[in-house]
Amino acid sequence: MLKLFDLAGADSQRRFSPYCWRIRMALAHKGLDVETIAWRFGDKDVIAPSGQGKVPVLVHGEKWLHESWDIAQYLEDTFSDRPSLFGGPQGRALSKLYSNYGDVISGQVVRFVLVDILNHLHETDKAYFRESREQRFGATLEQVVADREQKLQGFRDSLHPLRMTLKTQPYFGGASPLYADYAIFGVFQWARCISPFQLLTQDDPIAQWRDRLLQAFNGLAASAPGYDLET
Amino acid sequence: MLKLFDLAGADSQRRFSPYCWRIRMALAHKGLDVETIAWRFGDKDVIAPSGQGKVPVLVHGEKWLHESWDIAQYLEDTFSDRPSLFGGPQGRALSKLYSNYGDVISGQVVRFVLVDILNHLHETDKAYFRESREQRFGATLEQVVADREQKLQGFRDSLHPLRMTLKTQPYFGGASPLYADYAIFGVFQWARCISPFQLLTQDDPIAQWRDRLLQAFNGLAASAPGYDLET
Repeated sequence: MLKLFDLAGADSQRRFSPYCWRIRMALAHKGLDVETIAWRFGDKDVIAPSGQGKVPVLVHGEKWLHESWDIAQYLEDTFSDRPSLFGGPQGRALSKLYSNYGDVISGQVVRFVLVDILNHLHETDKAYFRESREQRFGATLEQVVADREQKLQGFRDSLHPLRMTLKTQPYFGGASPLYADYAIFGVFQWARCISPFQLLTQDDPIAQWRDRLLQAFNGLAASAPGYDLET
Repeated sequence: MLKLFDLAGADSQRRFSPYCWRIRMALAHKGLDVETIAWRFGDKDVIAPSGQGKVPVLVHGEKWLHESWDIAQYLEDTFSDRPSLFGGPQGRALSKLYSNYGDVISGQVVRFVLVDILNHLHETDKAYFRESREQRFGATLEQVVADREQKLQGFRDSLHPLRMTLKTQPYFGGASPLYADYAIFGVFQWARCISPFQLLTQDDPIAQWRDRLLQAFNGLAASAPGYDLET
């Protein structure tokens, strides 16, 4: 009944969109089964009914939904008898910053993993990916990641508000995770699925929170093809 | 019945602690009257019953409370029949990141306004302030702020997750403000009370949000002695 178009690499089981992972986790949180469909950048036609060309795209009966935040709203409103993703109207409003913060972190993380993404793409996607990203960054993919070791400490430092929070509570949502958690976790899961690069040290409370979410929902995220980040 | 020890300058009406402003706003949100007591860095003895030496300190009957986050929890639990600061248990958990994020922004903003703080302090506080802060920063106050014009764009850019959020909703709490808003607003109100430096451009959604909160509760924050930030 629910179908999710989910970004995949050459290996159709390797799923690596931060935004699709938000929705995978949100669906699991709601206890909803979903059929995921491996989607590649070239497959614009199959999601044309959504009115745009990016995933995640969720299909529910006649409805075609896109944009992770909008899909989460739809799931919360449509399956309101199931566990809440937000914890009420104020929690929903407070969750928006987490979604935006996740987007910003995604924009930082991509600068570490661009070449690793390329290496996992289906052959039919590689030329599109290189051209579109090199235009966006104004540099070759290789140039963007060349100084990633030097950028790493600055990236880790920038996550300090997250780290402070996860020192005093297991999840951003408190004792158990909410959509706010998935909105940021998606970024780290994306990186884990596509790159062996160690964005976080293992003693970082953010890494420990990520590891808890990897194990959530019977290891949904941990069992996805990706790299082992234990050190 | 409620008394707040509130950091003040040479002018006892100039109140300029980001953390005290969080509590001023939280008390107004709850519709609670409070007697604020001008407090200066040298007045450690008068807040000794709180068991430590920093403000805000809130006194409620026999109880002495400190730390802005802990005071907010106390107000929410003690005055639970009044408007909620968090919007329920999940909203409370989700608010913690905002408090930590505000602390991090405070640590950025102090590098723009250190000398302005000094200039507003009571004579008895100036030596303590210069010595303790110069030790913390490993530089003179004047050296810390010397490159503030050059640091400004980087600071503004770092606030992007806040800006994205306030483009689509009037407050972090949604249609009306919550403690999450006050936790970050306190930093900007502190800066406004102590410094004419324009941290934000007037067309920034963050500045417009700040201006809405300045007018909240019959202009509680706008009427406090400070600088006009309109440009």
